[in-house]
Amino acid sequence: MRRILQRTLPISLLLASLTGVADAADRVVGTSPWGPSDEIGRLNLMTPESRAAVLSRLAGGVTYDLSVEYFIGMPSWQAAGDPHYRMWMTHTPHGTVIDDPLNVGRPMNERVSYTGAAISMYTHMGTHIDALNHFGLDGKIWNGFSAAEHVGDRGWQVAGAEKIPPIVARGVLIDVAASKGVNMLPDGYRVTRDDLKRALEKQQTELREGDVVLIRTGRMQRYADADAYMANPPGMGLEAARFLVEDSQAMIVGADNLSFEAFPSELETDYVPVHTYLLAEQGTPIIELAYLEELSRDEVFEFAFIGASLKLRGADAAPIRPIAIPLRK
Amino acid sequence: MRRILQRTLPISLLLASLTGVADAADRVVGTSPWGPSDEIGRLNLMTPESRAAVLSRLAGGVTYDLSVEYFIGMPSWQAAGDPHYRMWMTHTPHGTVIDDPLNVGRPMNERVSYTGAAISMYTHMGTHIDALNHFGLDGKIWNGFSAAEHVGDRGWQVAGAEKIPPIVARGVLIDVAASKGVNMLPDGYRVTRDDLKRALEKQQTELREGDVVLIRTGRMQRYADADAYMANPPGMGLEAARFLVEDSQAMIVGADNLSFEAFPSELETDYVPVHTYLLAEQGTPIIELAYLEELSRDEVFEFAFIGASLKLRGADAAPIRPIAIPLRK
Amino acid sequence: MRRILQRTLPISLLLASLTGVADAADRVVGTSPWGPSDEIGRLNLMTPESRAAVLSRLAGGVTYDLSVEYFIGMPSWQAAGDPHYRMWMTHTPHGTVIDDPLNVGRPMNERVSYTGAAISMYTHMGTHIDALNHFGLDGKIWNGFSAAEHVGDRGWQVAGAEKIPPIVARGVLIDVAASKGVNMLPDGYRVTRDDLKRALEKQQTELREGDVVLIRTGRMQRYADADAYMANPPGMGLEAARFLVEDSQAMIVGADNLSFEAFPSELETDYVPVHTYLLAEQGTPIIELAYLEELSRDEVFEFAFIGASLKLRGADAAPIRPIAIPLRK
Amino acid sequence: MRRILQRTLPISLLLASLTGVADAADRVVGTSPWGPSDEIGRLNLMTPESRAAVLSRLAGGVTYDLSVEYFIGMPSWQAAGDPHYRMWMTHTPHGTVIDDPLNVGRPMNERVSYTGAAISMYTHMGTHIDALNHFGLDGKIWNGFSAAEHVGDRGWQVAGAEKIPPIVARGVLIDVAASKGVNMLPDGYRVTRDDLKRALEKQQTELREGDVVLIRTGRMQRYADADAYMANPPGMGLEAARFLVEDSQAMIVGADNLSFEAFPSELETDYVPVHTYLLAEQGTPIIELAYLEELSRDEVFEFAFIGASLKLRGADAAPIRPIAIPLRK
Repeated sequence: MRRILQRTLPISLLLASLTGVADAADRVVGTSPWGPSDEIGRLNLMTPESRAAVLSRLAGGVTYDLSVEYFIGMPSWQAAGDPHYRMWMTHTPHGTVIDDPLNVGRPMNERVSYTGAAISMYTHMGTHIDALNHFGLDGKIWNGFSAAEHVGDRGWQVAGAEKIPPIVARGVLIDVAASKGVNMLPDGYRVTRDDLKRALEKQQTELREGDVVLIRTGRMQRYADADAYMANPPGMGLEAARFLVEDSQAMIVGADNLSFEAFPSELETDYVPVHTYLLAEQGTPIIELAYLEELSRDEVFEFAFIGASLKLRGADAAPIRPIAIPLRK
Repeated sequence: MRRILQRTLPISLLLASLTGVADAADRVVGTSPWGPSDEIGRLNLMTPESRAAVLSRLAGGVTYDLSVEYFIGMPSWQAAGDPHYRMWMTHTPHGTVIDDPLNVGRPMNERVSYTGAAISMYTHMGTHIDALNHFGLDGKIWNGFSAAEHVGDRGWQVAGAEKIPPIVARGVLIDVAASKGVNMLPDGYRVTRDDLKRALEKQQTELREGDVVLIRTGRMQRYADADAYMANPPGMGLEAARFLVEDSQAMIVGADNLSFEAFPSELETDYVPVHTYLLAEQGTPIIELAYLEELSRDEVFEFAFIGASLKLRGADAAPIRPIAIPLRK
Repeated sequence: MRRILQRTLPISLLLASLTGVADAADRVVGTSPWGPSDEIGRLNLMTPESRAAVLSRLAGGVTYDLSVEYFIGMPSWQAAGDPHYRMWMTHTPHGTVIDDPLNVGRPMNERVSYTGAAISMYTHMGTHIDALNHFGLDGKIWNGFSAAEHVGDRGWQVAGAEKIPPIVARGVLIDVAASKGVNMLPDGYRVTRDDLKRALEKQQTELREGDVVLIRTGRMQRYADADAYMANPPGMGLEAARFLVEDSQAMIVGADNLSFEAFPSELETDYVPVHTYLLAEQGTPIIELAYLEELSRDEVFEFAFIGASLKLRGADAAPIRPIAIPLRK
Repeated sequence: MRRILQRTLPISLLLASLTGVADAADRVVGTSPWGPSDEIGRLNLMTPESRAAVLSRLAGGVTYDLSVEYFIGMPSWQAAGDPHYRMWMTHTPHGTVIDDPLNVGRPMNERVSYTGAAISMYTHMGTHIDALNHFGLDGKIWNGFSAAEHVGDRGWQVAGAEKIPPIVARGVLIDVAASKGVNMLPDGYRVTRDDLKRALEKQQTELREGDVVLIRTGRMQRYADADAYMANPPGMGLEAARFLVEDSQAMIVGADNLSFEAFPSELETDYVPVHTYLLAEQGTPIIELAYLEELSRDEVFEFAFIGASLKLRGADAAPIRPIAIPLRK
């Protein structure tokens, strides 16, 4: 983390932060109230009844696309040497005429114009949802599953992205940027509990148990410029996260920035305390890089959140392209 | 294709088929009724009103997951040397303690257990939707866009997967296997126009303009065994496809098999005539590898289809994890 | 291994073998005579003097290429789900005209025809050399380095391929196939100590300390057909390996087959006993997929072996394209 | 190129350069004197006799390693979105115990500690040699092969890296930095014909037909810092290249920088004129990222160059790890 911070923060700010709060020695991964085999945490709050409740209130046929595009050069977390998004072609109308990969002959390849492409990516790119195995404490993740017993060569054998069900739930936008009268929160701004409460009050929105709560910092306006998007973004503080989960009983939390939380860490001994709090202690999946600009523009603060992430077996995150449909009051 | 067929079909069957119908010399790519800049074809049938109509009839909170898992060893079209699905870890709780990729020191890495993974895949794997640039005729695709002017090094500059909107539409299951009283259609079976009509009649389901029509062959029951799933599967014939699009005005068609259509081709000069018909002539996206077993079990023939594919810029297909929600009559 | 064997061996043969010898309980990884920091084992036998000795005897300007080609569809060890060789283009003369990735304009891209490609591969493909960290015993590798302390997220921090020096040494071909009067050893044939001794005698070749010893089974003649090349190949038995290292003091051993050793294993509790013997107990690198056909054709049994593998940091193997130059007597 | 230059050069320097010389309208790709099927150009200068001549003069057993390491974070040409070097593990001693990918059971996996890794890379990374299909003019490459007829989906069908023979030739170091009394040439310095002639004179080295000529700028001292290594490096000018090939009859030219030539281009209509001159007009392969520091330190100006690049079928470049062995006078 020191390396990351050197890139994005003045050293004085970094040192200031590290004089902060020590990590509670007794912080441990959470034990699931849904039993010892639970791998999805607060996603258990979703039931046929909860889905029916939100689906019965759909306001019409307007849908909002909450996801961003994947393209070469898109933002991607690079501090630890992870793969960029790549796309390449394995068949083109021109190339198949020369290669004839299916052994059908030149006239057939000239007649049938075949295009095929492949991709590679780190799972934490574009609009995505973190699975509960993404971050843990002391070698364990949510519900006490240990790396020693459950991490194989190609991912965790528990709590993987393939366990995340399709999500149909009440969604709430907390437009912190708008609440503060700015277009975008400043670089490095750490969203507080009060910021969230004031924005909700201003919006006249209430949070309810089982919500998908999406926080808008406005950062997404820089998405097309990867360096600008990633450099020292605003994010959530620990108390903001606690407000969402413990006070408000959110099922999933998310935001429009790269990593949900603000850096540098508020804790001396944990470089991503909001992630470990949410994923490992509270069993709360996190959505990152959500596209919230249109919801903000139209002041859609309450909606049906409908999204289903790719079932990547064993993965610690998966891409998701959720939609929002406004609700009747 | 000869190479593929040798792997999967008795040669007598192959030769029989190739004595069949010659390709119509005047087959050309379609010109869009939605104008010269149209890149999404029949997806234009979807409107706020069409979405509102289906969303107003949701029957409750039961959802069906129509997608399959991604895992190492999963089925993937290999005849032309395309990449398999791969997943690998770039950070593990153990490895970061040794490597310290973020330069935070051993105690921090022992406290914070970090897991990260990456994937790579051909875009035509798992449950996915084909974009209109996937297959064309004579160097052009739907609406006359030419490879010479629009294929760059990293995909088409038109009609890419990022143009596909989130899909909310009436969905219809045509359970051809059930209609025929079998668990799974036989190897290599080519579904006919009559098969579809009889199944619809038996189900008492009507097709309507703008539907997402999903055909069940039962093949998905073999998904866990990649070789078995891919060897000589049943699929659609040309007349079946014409029935869906021209007679029934479907917006999207799909099935539970690898490639939607049956092989070997019915045309001498086109090895994938159902693909070129649907994508290039009719502007109709195709969903492949849809998981329809639970819909079939519960006899859910009509439903809201809600799905949004990944916005892979320029790609010829993208993964999608759609859900189905039953409708009230 | 059971899974592999089921693919390639009649079950009776497998069972027969597994009634064989139990693994010696006291087998442990070797301690290097070159000191506690040694990471290259028997490569320490190479010195300026040993190199000068062989280089002073070069017979002229004839060179033999001991490596195979990399191409899509080439043989690759697939039993454990490892990546195939892939190559793809990221720039083509045509595509750059459309994409203009360097922002130089269409006339410049039409004038300058740019081609660029990328590859991916498992490190144990094509002609390659295994580093000493490839196989160990009980969590340790050669010289006692432990996985617990030295395996990070991107490879071992010790004994990686980047430590392997350029190799200039006396090379010896042991043409077992020719010695037995066959073109290729039979499927599954396990080369014995006597086979090696008889071939050396027939060839009138002596082994000396520090040699690179390459065994020819003839299998390479099937290289163009990946399935045929890989199915149940002939290989070395344990006693053959012991003869090469302990009796004959080879520095490196190699062969023209996929995995050097024969399967199924001769030991009940070690599925790759020749690998663990050579790499972990004896510190002896292994060359696999060596192309020896031309040496055999010309009966070049003694030569200068000159080869330098790619310095892939932390890797357990690296591609190498060695050459052989005949020696004067 | 404008995009690249903006990153690395003051705009005034760029504009200055672009007021320079216009490209000769009659520049065309070269026709091989070795016949219409020639795909390797000046590599034809190498013969058994030329190899024997250099091998007969080896001075002893000292070898110099002319290659650099491959590691995550290494320099790689990024202006056009090409892949970085990646390495990842597919088997680890710990992970196989959990995953049991070979189905051999936990005790076996605990006994046999298996490590396997995979890599991916752009072919123009690390010490490598450019094949003649890397750059052309007007859609053609060396000897008139056209992209329209010879570029398939996975590379060129002619002039690929697999055609490059193992190289055994007289090597010459031209230490321009040392000749100028500096440790490293300044940023953006363009080496001239006179620079080469003066350095040769100072070194008392003569060039001969068929040489591998390697130019030292000193830039390699920054290799460990990718950004520093790549930012505005020194390189060759066109006249320097002409001196090496036309006046001096070099077989291969190379240097220790990223791209051999200096930027910005000396020609208005060709952004890489030294590449197109060498590869397309003259059929001269280029070695980039050669490690020359130790040769320079020991003032080894003449040596046997022995190197063999990976046989990547159809590729426009391939990694190579050459060695240098000093020659007797």
